[in-house]
Amino acid sequence: MAKAFVAELPDGQPVTSYFVAKQVQARQRRSGEAYLTMVLADRSGELPAVVWEGVEDLAHGLADGDIVKVQAVLGAYRGERQLTVTRVRKAAPEEVCLEDFFPRTERDVAGMLATLDEAVAGIGDPHLKRLLQDLFSDPTVRDAFAMAPAAKAIHHAFLGGLLEHTVSVVGLCRLLADYYPAVNRDLLVTAAILHDMGKVDELGWERVFDYTDAGRLLGHIALGAFRVQERIRSIPDFPVELANSLLHCILSHHGELEWGSPKRPKTLEAIVLHYAENLDGKVASFLSFAKRYPDPQHPGWTQFNKALDRYLYVGQPPNEAGGSESGPTANDG
Amino acid sequence: MAKAFVAELPDGQPVTSYFVAKQVQARQRRSGEAYLTMVLADRSGELPAVVWEGVEDLAHGLADGDIVKVQAVLGAYRGERQLTVTRVRKAAPEEVCLEDFFPRTERDVAGMLATLDEAVAGIGDPHLKRLLQDLFSDPTVRDAFAMAPAAKAIHHAFLGGLLEHTVSVVGLCRLLADYYPAVNRDLLVTAAILHDMGKVDELGWERVFDYTDAGRLLGHIALGAFRVQERIRSIPDFPVELANSLLHCILSHHGELEWGSPKRPKTLEAIVLHYAENLDGKVASFLSFAKRYPDPQHPGWTQFNKALDRYLYVGQPPNEAGGSESGPTANDG
Amino acid sequence: MAKAFVAELPDGQPVTSYFVAKQVQARQRRSGEAYLTMVLADRSGELPAVVWEGVEDLAHGLADGDIVKVQAVLGAYRGERQLTVTRVRKAAPEEVCLEDFFPRTERDVAGMLATLDEAVAGIGDPHLKRLLQDLFSDPTVRDAFAMAPAAKAIHHAFLGGLLEHTVSVVGLCRLLADYYPAVNRDLLVTAAILHDMGKVDELGWERVFDYTDAGRLLGHIALGAFRVQERIRSIPDFPVELANSLLHCILSHHGELEWGSPKRPKTLEAIVLHYAENLDGKVASFLSFAKRYPDPQHPGWTQFNKALDRYLYVGQPPNEAGGSESGPTANDG
Amino acid sequence: MAKAFVAELPDGQPVTSYFVAKQVQARQRRSGEAYLTMVLADRSGELPAVVWEGVEDLAHGLADGDIVKVQAVLGAYRGERQLTVTRVRKAAPEEVCLEDFFPRTERDVAGMLATLDEAVAGIGDPHLKRLLQDLFSDPTVRDAFAMAPAAKAIHHAFLGGLLEHTVSVVGLCRLLADYYPAVNRDLLVTAAILHDMGKVDELGWERVFDYTDAGRLLGHIALGAFRVQERIRSIPDFPVELANSLLHCILSHHGELEWGSPKRPKTLEAIVLHYAENLDGKVASFLSFAKRYPDPQHPGWTQFNKALDRYLYVGQPPNEAGGSESGPTANDG
Amino acid sequence: MAKAFVAELPDGQPVTSYFVAKQVQARQRRSGEAYLTMVLADRSGELPAVVWEGVEDLAHGLADGDIVKVQAVLGAYRGERQLTVTRVRKAAPEEVCLEDFFPRTERDVAGMLATLDEAVAGIGDPHLKRLLQDLFSDPTVRDAFAMAPAAKAIHHAFLGGLLEHTVSVVGLCRLLADYYPAVNRDLLVTAAILHDMGKVDELGWERVFDYTDAGRLLGHIALGAFRVQERIRSIPDFPVELANSLLHCILSHHGELEWGSPKRPKTLEAIVLHYAENLDGKVASFLSFAKRYPDPQHPGWTQFNKALDRYLYVGQPPNEAGGSESGPTANDG
Amino acid sequence: MAKAFVAELPDGQPVTSYFVAKQVQARQRRSGEAYLTMVLADRSGELPAVVWEGVEDLAHGLADGDIVKVQAVLGAYRGERQLTVTRVRKAAPEEVCLEDFFPRTERDVAGMLATLDEAVAGIGDPHLKRLLQDLFSDPTVRDAFAMAPAAKAIHHAFLGGLLEHTVSVVGLCRLLADYYPAVNRDLLVTAAILHDMGKVDELGWERVFDYTDAGRLLGHIALGAFRVQERIRSIPDFPVELANSLLHCILSHHGELEWGSPKRPKTLEAIVLHYAENLDGKVASFLSFAKRYPDPQHPGWTQFNKALDRYLYVGQPPNEAGGSESGPTANDG
Repeated sequence: MAKAFVAELPDGQPVTSYFVAKQVQARQRRSGEAYLTMVLADRSGELPAVVWEGVEDLAHGLADGDIVKVQAVLGAYRGERQLTVTRVRKAAPEEVCLEDFFPRTERDVAGMLATLDEAVAGIGDPHLKRLLQDLFSDPTVRDAFAMAPAAKAIHHAFLGGLLEHTVSVVGLCRLLADYYPAVNRDLLVTAAILHDMGKVDELGWERVFDYTDAGRLLGHIALGAFRVQERIRSIPDFPVELANSLLHCILSHHGELEWGSPKRPKTLEAIVLHYAENLDGKVASFLSFAKRYPDPQHPGWTQFNKALDRYLYVGQPPNEAGGSESGPTANDG
Repeated sequence: MAKAFVAELPDGQPVTSYFVAKQVQARQRRSGEAYLTMVLADRSGELPAVVWEGVEDLAHGLADGDIVKVQAVLGAYRGERQLTVTRVRKAAPEEVCLEDFFPRTERDVAGMLATLDEAVAGIGDPHLKRLLQDLFSDPTVRDAFAMAPAAKAIHHAFLGGLLEHTVSVVGLCRLLADYYPAVNRDLLVTAAILHDMGKVDELGWERVFDYTDAGRLLGHIALGAFRVQERIRSIPDFPVELANSLLHCILSHHGELEWGSPKRPKTLEAIVLHYAENLDGKVASFLSFAKRYPDPQHPGWTQFNKALDRYLYVGQPPNEAGGSESGPTANDG
Repeated sequence: MAKAFVAELPDGQPVTSYFVAKQVQARQRRSGEAYLTMVLADRSGELPAVVWEGVEDLAHGLADGDIVKVQAVLGAYRGERQLTVTRVRKAAPEEVCLEDFFPRTERDVAGMLATLDEAVAGIGDPHLKRLLQDLFSDPTVRDAFAMAPAAKAIHHAFLGGLLEHTVSVVGLCRLLADYYPAVNRDLLVTAAILHDMGKVDELGWERVFDYTDAGRLLGHIALGAFRVQERIRSIPDFPVELANSLLHCILSHHGELEWGSPKRPKTLEAIVLHYAENLDGKVASFLSFAKRYPDPQHPGWTQFNKALDRYLYVGQPPNEAGGSESGPTANDG
Repeated sequence: MAKAFVAELPDGQPVTSYFVAKQVQARQRRSGEAYLTMVLADRSGELPAVVWEGVEDLAHGLADGDIVKVQAVLGAYRGERQLTVTRVRKAAPEEVCLEDFFPRTERDVAGMLATLDEAVAGIGDPHLKRLLQDLFSDPTVRDAFAMAPAAKAIHHAFLGGLLEHTVSVVGLCRLLADYYPAVNRDLLVTAAILHDMGKVDELGWERVFDYTDAGRLLGHIALGAFRVQERIRSIPDFPVELANSLLHCILSHHGELEWGSPKRPKTLEAIVLHYAENLDGKVASFLSFAKRYPDPQHPGWTQFNKALDRYLYVGQPPNEAGGSESGPTANDG
Repeated sequence: MAKAFVAELPDGQPVTSYFVAKQVQARQRRSGEAYLTMVLADRSGELPAVVWEGVEDLAHGLADGDIVKVQAVLGAYRGERQLTVTRVRKAAPEEVCLEDFFPRTERDVAGMLATLDEAVAGIGDPHLKRLLQDLFSDPTVRDAFAMAPAAKAIHHAFLGGLLEHTVSVVGLCRLLADYYPAVNRDLLVTAAILHDMGKVDELGWERVFDYTDAGRLLGHIALGAFRVQERIRSIPDFPVELANSLLHCILSHHGELEWGSPKRPKTLEAIVLHYAENLDGKVASFLSFAKRYPDPQHPGWTQFNKALDRYLYVGQPPNEAGGSESGPTANDG
Repeated sequence: MAKAFVAELPDGQPVTSYFVAKQVQARQRRSGEAYLTMVLADRSGELPAVVWEGVEDLAHGLADGDIVKVQAVLGAYRGERQLTVTRVRKAAPEEVCLEDFFPRTERDVAGMLATLDEAVAGIGDPHLKRLLQDLFSDPTVRDAFAMAPAAKAIHHAFLGGLLEHTVSVVGLCRLLADYYPAVNRDLLVTAAILHDMGKVDELGWERVFDYTDAGRLLGHIALGAFRVQERIRSIPDFPVELANSLLHCILSHHGELEWGSPKRPKTLEAIVLHYAENLDGKVASFLSFAKRYPDPQHPGWTQFNKALDRYLYVGQPPNEAGGSESGPTANDG
């Protein structure tokens, strides 16, 4: 059955499709009868929904984040669009494709994985290369790495976000290794590939994007270091100093203790990785926020960005601005 | 050969014994001749020393922290006591006993180990007990744990300091588990035993107390978590939640991100461990500082304590103060 | 008249009882007629209420926090339960018992006072003992100390909260004085008993829990120090040093300037008191928050705790978790 | 015997006079003989001194801060001026006048006290006036208030400094009360007079300027509040609200918790007092530092001021700067 | 047409007048028909409004902050007053007078300008005087300076607020220059006049008070320094040192880097200006907040002030408080 | 006369050359005779020096930072090398070449200027290009820009440092503009070229590297913004938005208020510039510190770096580490 997407639902016509149920709440009418409100969502958007019938059977069966099969009609309530649900049941995992429900990277996953493989292939140091090959040849790791979001919110909060962020940081680090020859290129690139690997364990993305228990209790920095350290132990003769330097990059990549790194960067590669990672995250946040939250009252500006604690300025497209203010013959000579 | 200790060297008489060489510096007399200055130390104290002869042979051979065999005479230079060294050579490891050179715990190491074993024996949870037994039945771990200092400076900066600090925190946590019945006693006691285990890897104590490369790059919080996590993986069916909770206690025991924990305490046991560990360290610091750095110009006060950023007040001994001012009939009239 | 509690009100039947009125607001119907909305509360919970009749007479007579006698019927409005009030008047103080309206300690007040008296009796230092006896033999002080909450919110925010918190800190300090023999036990226990005494003046609890003018302007640290210092002045020959040390414990017990202590702890007893008090408050907050705010969407977790700026993890009961993951014969051998 | 001041001692001639002994240290010559080094100081400056003879008798008798009678000759050691002491003994209190030894205010103490009395006389509120009269009619208080320094260092660190600082803040607050009519003038002026009264108890000035035990343990904010609160209690019918407001000004005058105030200013008078006090202290620090620590290498600048964490700029006298760069007829047209 | 002010609109009668439209939102009825909600405001207050008819023509024509001519009737919706609009169109600039729509200073603008001119006239230094005359003789500057608010919110957020704040700071600085003779009076007064001049460029006030693009990107500190520096460059022989000192005052007047000053005050005049400006702003905030946000539930207190992060205390009028607690004959003797 | 460099002075032979005099101090021998100590320095190092004769004539003539012509002999004093000066006089500017005395960039200045010119030539936006051309075609600016150090200490503290740092940041920004296509390349490159231009005014380098008065009072961020803003005003039709965006980059490039930027980055270009500049500075600091301050006691580590508040780890050369632990056939099996 082709997915009917929230953003394209026709007014007033019945629809049958799959959605994520969120904010499920049992309520009571004045008359005493129970009903259910929820939000039905997929990757294209979300809509409030109400279930008037058969609520008792549902009440204990539905939890936030469940993917459900729904029969409904799109109407309006107090001027807002609302789905009136006539049938609803939980969907079985095999009925659904996660990427229908969650935002996903707009880039090509296979292509990004290939880029990563190519970066691994370019590593000269045999221990680092083996470490990366061992990790990524494990299909569980590879698949999770390709699917995981990079965050619950803020930046790269979509399926494939970890991969997209990693590929971008790796690309930037390769540029920087060229620009600063003193950098140990193999170490920096390896650290860039692995720096956020712990997010595979920190975040869950099968129902809603959220932290796992391990994610909340241990965090992706420690979880990633565990994975890498454990794999290193399985490689004979992996040089101790190289292991320390690599794990140091992972532990310190947030840059400051108060940002969650238990150590601050003390090596050239750790310093470069921290800045590259930070810059890449900021650029991605800027672009995604500017796209999603322009402020119509202040042309050229975004709404207030809480993570950065400021408004962001996109400005006018440069040539347009130049053109409109300088006149036909000026300044071009 | 019985060790001659710095604190007991007789003035003006030749002495032959072993010391740690520190701050070794090659210098040049006006006449152009080379000489060597250093500080010779053992667990009882330290003295400046000078070597006038045979310096060329020594210059490249001596490094800070070397234990040396020395023939010298104690004199004075500008009013300060100084050793004039007539012969000096590096000592072989088998010639020396580390505890002669470094401050060591004043408590009985075997007794403290027994206390620890008894705490392990008292653990009811089979997984936690097995984890502890696995770790401490490894003689390398056990010996290092018994020998390691708990710090380079500040508190418990002596051989056996880690053990002494651990035993004290464990004892306190057992009291607290009794006082707060909601606490998972087995978990708290296990976490108390293991919380600083990473110091075995973070600190070196064979020459001078100092951080190892791994200590500086990864820190004892991550190093301890690595050890525990690795051992947990080798125990079949170790419950995931229990592992997460234990590792969380270790990672969060510094309490705040800016104090080096990548996660802040989120469980009751982690909260209790953090306070117990912090309190025990502060009490130990207070007592050791008060003993070593009284300020003769301000009776009852210590010199300025940089770590705490304040002066500490010891006051008058309680019974003396009480006695002198109250007496049997006083103060009630 | 037996109190009818909010949590047990029957639907659709008239009820007559006493409640605290909160958020009293005069409103106007489309038709122009005035009505009143408020929240009626007692220690068991609270309900929205509406008064349709006789509003003019009430409008200026009711203030937030007033205890009122009410005749009402429990119905529903937009699916939420709501009281429709038919008669309402302010209650006279003699009609009501404060403990019906505000949450109160679940522990036995008389028993806790006895514990405190026993702690006072155990003080050996005659000046400290006399100070405590003088303070607690004053019935105004004793009664207020037994009744006061320990906070407006966060932890021990209920009648008897100050006493419960104090007894708990005293008990912990007695343990710690045993554990650390260098501690002046009499001084520490006295300081533990008196450390939050200023809350008697800082908080009001006769209508709603809130700060008094003196509480907002001076705070419980200064107010408590005033009370203790004044009482000390009335005891002949109270040793100056002992007075300074005791007042220091009170002034410094928040531990840091930015937490409202004008001095940081500089004595062993002040350090121990600060940690004991902080730990006890954190444990109490944890348990009370975990009980009241579990997060049904994240089993084992609480909702977000603003005071601690984190989610808290309660986890599964240890034996259940162990059992479910280890199988019948495993791990017990 | 007329005091011979350090700044005016003649080279090479014997002198007999009184000085403060500081940094007294017993030392040992190469030959094994003991000698003593110290610094001898009075309000005009200080000089290193050495005692070669009769040291044994002195060693335990002299403490830092003692005022001593000395017979000595001024010579030089390694190019620095040094006193060689031939006789030294502790002086009896009646032999000396404190103001010879410590820096003292350059302003007229009696005149400043009169200014203060005049400010008290101008208070209209009878309770506040009585409070001030009660406090300052006590000769112990009055004398201590006239003599106390306002700080151990930084600003007003001289005899009479508290009085000078207080008079200046009072004058400024009177101006501000005129400028901002909403201010309760009597309250502000009273608070200005009393805000630092606790320094009388916080600082000792009979030997060296230093904190007393009470000063270090309780601080001048609490000590001042104690004095004022105690005196208020002795005045019948002193309005509670007025007492709270006045004590609030004293407790909050440092402005922020991290600057040692247990409450931040919440009333108009407390806000004004905080700024007036802060400004006056900064102006005094600036002028005194600029006078004492010009940086000859950077004309117009001071040396680095640690308390303010910056260099201060005094600049050229305005007319000189103007004159030198503009010429006689320029810029006026 | 005389302006009908929001605060004085009669119930139930048609009104025709000008208002600022805010929060304009297109909505949809259940029936599918579009309608518009907005808030209509002027300097006396604001009211919710709804437009049922002719919405399509309006939708794209109205933007937040537009001044509109409106025909409407005042009714009620769910007990809240609401305007039902029957006709609405954008007003032409010449139809309206800004001061009808925005809060404005209650003081006399011409009188304040005269005070400023008089302060300029009192400057003795010829360069500073010329600088001020050059700036304020430019009618664009003069008019903007007279009209600009001093803030978007917090204090002096009304038309004429910049002028009112500046005149107040100038007056205070003149007092302080008298009180501290070491201050360069001409420099301080000039700096006081110019310190917030950049607000003319930072804030827009023609539609709603808000930051301009330049205001958000560069800020009033830099914008003001630009204006002053540019004008200084146009004055021949303006002494470099004087220019540096004046610009330093402007750049540093926020006092700390984290408050937006790129340099902290290093001269006496910059220090005094910083405190004077800060104090004056705080006093104005206090008075305006106390007037607008009293907390009826806590007599004598304001509601919570977010900018200051505290409740403010106004207290009882002093004589009333005194009177009520002291009785007829007390305290006057 | 060929410069004799400090690092190459022969022992015991007379030398005549030019040096910078630092730490000039008049002293007095025991015999009462005056002498002078100073440090004589050039770009290769520095040596203590003493002048025994003719001191009276010199005393008032020499200031720190003067370049002097000196006749001296290299000997030793207490084992340290020391110059005994027999003749000394101030050098005339025309006698000396600054680059002999101060450390200078090791890169080719003309080449770096050419790189800058090439970057300017690559700017497409006509206004930005003209701005850059106007600025750099002024020979005073160009020369100062080529000569200025980038700091008094920390990184790029040598002649040509500003140019070297700028060229490196420009190069990095060009890479980043390629990597992030959303970036306005012309704006970013222009901002990179100009971001530290204010250092030309902030630092003096003709005697010692130190802040100018304007540098200390206004700082390079404001000084640079002044220069750029002034030049922009002279270009007709320079788009306002482009000017704001460029000035915003300059003002915000330190990234945070507490690091001295009066605005934080709000545009994509400002964000990228901030990270690029920060990263480039950190890399330069790392490399220069690692080269100059290795810690011989901790191979692979530097001494403590105060600016970064940590030790830095250089590690073993990668191939050596790899080689020594793996060998040709190892690790692949």
